[in-house]
Amino acid sequence: MRIIVQKFGGTSVADPECMKNVARIVTNTKKRGYMVVVVVSAPGDMTDDLIDFANKVSANIPEREMDMLLATGEQSSIALLTMALNEIGTDAISLTGEQAGVLTNGIYGKARIKKINTVRLIKELKSGKIVVVAGFQGIDENGEINTLGRGGSDISAVAIAAALKAERCEIYKDVKGVYTADPRIVSNAIKVSEMSYDEVLELASLGAQVLHSRAAELAKKFGLKVYIRSTFDVNAKGTVIKGEHHADIYYPIQNKKGVFMEGMYVVGATADKNQAKVTIVKVPDRPGIASKIFSSIAKAHVNVDMIVQNVSHKGYTDVSFTTTRGDLHKTLKIVKSVARQINAEDVLSNSDVAKVSIVGAGMTTHPGVASRMFSALARAKINIDMISTSEIKVSCIVKHDQADRAVKVLHKEFLE
Amino acid sequence: MRIIVQKFGGTSVADPECMKNVARIVTNTKKRGYMVVVVVSAPGDMTDDLIDFANKVSANIPEREMDMLLATGEQSSIALLTMALNEIGTDAISLTGEQAGVLTNGIYGKARIKKINTVRLIKELKSGKIVVVAGFQGIDENGEINTLGRGGSDISAVAIAAALKAERCEIYKDVKGVYTADPRIVSNAIKVSEMSYDEVLELASLGAQVLHSRAAELAKKFGLKVYIRSTFDVNAKGTVIKGEHHADIYYPIQNKKGVFMEGMYVVGATADKNQAKVTIVKVPDRPGIASKIFSSIAKAHVNVDMIVQNVSHKGYTDVSFTTTRGDLHKTLKIVKSVARQINAEDVLSNSDVAKVSIVGAGMTTHPGVASRMFSALARAKINIDMISTSEIKVSCIVKHDQADRAVKVLHKEFLE
Repeated sequence: MRIIVQKFGGTSVADPECMKNVARIVTNTKKRGYMVVVVVSAPGDMTDDLIDFANKVSANIPEREMDMLLATGEQSSIALLTMALNEIGTDAISLTGEQAGVLTNGIYGKARIKKINTVRLIKELKSGKIVVVAGFQGIDENGEINTLGRGGSDISAVAIAAALKAERCEIYKDVKGVYTADPRIVSNAIKVSEMSYDEVLELASLGAQVLHSRAAELAKKFGLKVYIRSTFDVNAKGTVIKGEHHADIYYPIQNKKGVFMEGMYVVGATADKNQAKVTIVKVPDRPGIASKIFSSIAKAHVNVDMIVQNVSHKGYTDVSFTTTRGDLHKTLKIVKSVARQINAEDVLSNSDVAKVSIVGAGMTTHPGVASRMFSALARAKINIDMISTSEIKVSCIVKHDQADRAVKVLHKEFLE
Repeated sequence: MRIIVQKFGGTSVADPECMKNVARIVTNTKKRGYMVVVVVSAPGDMTDDLIDFANKVSANIPEREMDMLLATGEQSSIALLTMALNEIGTDAISLTGEQAGVLTNGIYGKARIKKINTVRLIKELKSGKIVVVAGFQGIDENGEINTLGRGGSDISAVAIAAALKAERCEIYKDVKGVYTADPRIVSNAIKVSEMSYDEVLELASLGAQVLHSRAAELAKKFGLKVYIRSTFDVNAKGTVIKGEHHADIYYPIQNKKGVFMEGMYVVGATADKNQAKVTIVKVPDRPGIASKIFSSIAKAHVNVDMIVQNVSHKGYTDVSFTTTRGDLHKTLKIVKSVARQINAEDVLSNSDVAKVSIVGAGMTTHPGVASRMFSALARAKINIDMISTSEIKVSCIVKHDQADRAVKVLHKEFLE
């Protein structure tokens, strides 16, 4: 059985014409001798429309009900795409996450996939059908609908491909592959032909939206080849993500500004605009305080990203961190309660921020890269609010409306 | 346990303000000491929008996929209404048809409810929650989503009320109860305070949309009291549907045009605009032909309404019948195939029609009523295409755009 899993995002299924285009791509894959599973997101703006409606009904939405609501988007997509396939004479069947055997761990809004029961998937594939599966959703052991969080359809696609031992998983997007920066922001960004799982993981954690980090982790775990390709230009080669490092991507660009130091490279510049910043002011600097703050947050399944704690001053310190905008409300509730318990002075928040990052190997061993990044931003009059570095990235929090310009500046500095 | 089941249709949950209104009605019922199950339809035009999208994707939609698509409408409603309830501090939980234990018989598009497993419903009610259930849908024994057909949420509500031995089922609509004609068409139509199940059954079969006939059948079977009430005027008394006949509804109106004969009355005039007409031309008049035609149609689970066969002429006859507009495409495919087998000359169809009817006891024993109906329509220059009579109704097929005028004419003739 040669199986391919193909995933199409919201813009690829936004309207009837898009649906027909996807139906043709999928049908051609089947004609090339593959069994095909298609994973789809909700059509176009449907998810945003549903969230808008919900926000008009309630200011404090129970997560279970949000999942109940959002799961309808993908369910609409699978039905419509199956109709489009049927219309061109291709035998197909739609399956909800539950019907496809996607068992999740019961955490609403950001569930993890525990297991995939492939019995029904394999039965339908063997009967000659293309199987169209609702991404982003699964069901827990109590029969409750869970969604997987942002980018969840990528996770569904990779998990199903791994469970079915598929030859590959293809993620179709509205770009032709992975670029050195977002080509919608930096017009001369360059397409990368191959990347390693680890590089994708770093890019994903920086908001580059190449492939969800949890999807990249799963692909790495199972050694699954993932292709990033364009829905609107199926002949474009795309980017393949696989295990080995490939020397050609380390120096894809002739740098006109000088010579990089040995072993140092910058592979991409990116922005994550879905960030919010929280600062706890005047925290007593005692052991166990940070643990108390962040374990309370973790219990609520809120992801914290950058954490910055300044040096202590007269026994007090400020602790700042970032989270996603969607989790800000919930996070503040928790943090305010913890702040009272630990006698901190105040809790401040700001969602008018974004995180811009550069990625590449050997960052920390070449501190000049970080300072060059800060200088480039300073020359462009972009103020840096927080800084966080790792071995292969440097991230800065800047004002939200300066994020795109920051990426252009950094691409110019390091990649042109 | 005093349980009330309240059902709200699409116009009652069309937008955030409507949702909030419904949340208040339901919460007030709970405050009066009841356990409350709420059954909702899809918000406003959502179902029509989904059907439009589907029709743009495919001209020949598999019924399984249509059910998969349409079930999302009610799922959206239950999530949004539960959010609205939560927002005003009322503890509630949404359940899909599957989660509510609604087991159906596997017929896509017009499934029947086989059984309701009330374990989860009762568990949630006992925990003090209002339970918000998706109407119109259930799941068959293979885990496939089935919808119940037009008016299916009425059926869900009555079935759940019966299964829970509820004190009553309340159907909320955008009218204040059951009228002698559609008050949107006939401005001086009169509200009826009580009706019997049988009368509602006749009205329902004639497209009056008081209560779906299958819902009325279920209510009759279980002796369940059903109230028809207004979402937008909760103080209005509405109409109660129950077992006994009530003399007051037989002569609710002072007839100004003369004296009705003993035992004869017309209780309402109504139009069904969701009709399509099919005629099989020049059918050889042999025994078994009608059986052959209509058994093929029945196998496809298409409901046929009026059947008219003219007298034979030189060994041939024309057979006409009506079905719903939604089933026309499917019906024509079947009928054309049968027509070839039985050597009929041609198959014609027309969906530009509507059925107008008058309802009342003793119709056939008082043939003057039918002729008076035909004369009234003739005076109004409304042409009659087909006629069908039963003991308590007379129905005529007329042009679609003349249906409302025909109802006004008949209301004036019989009910003012």
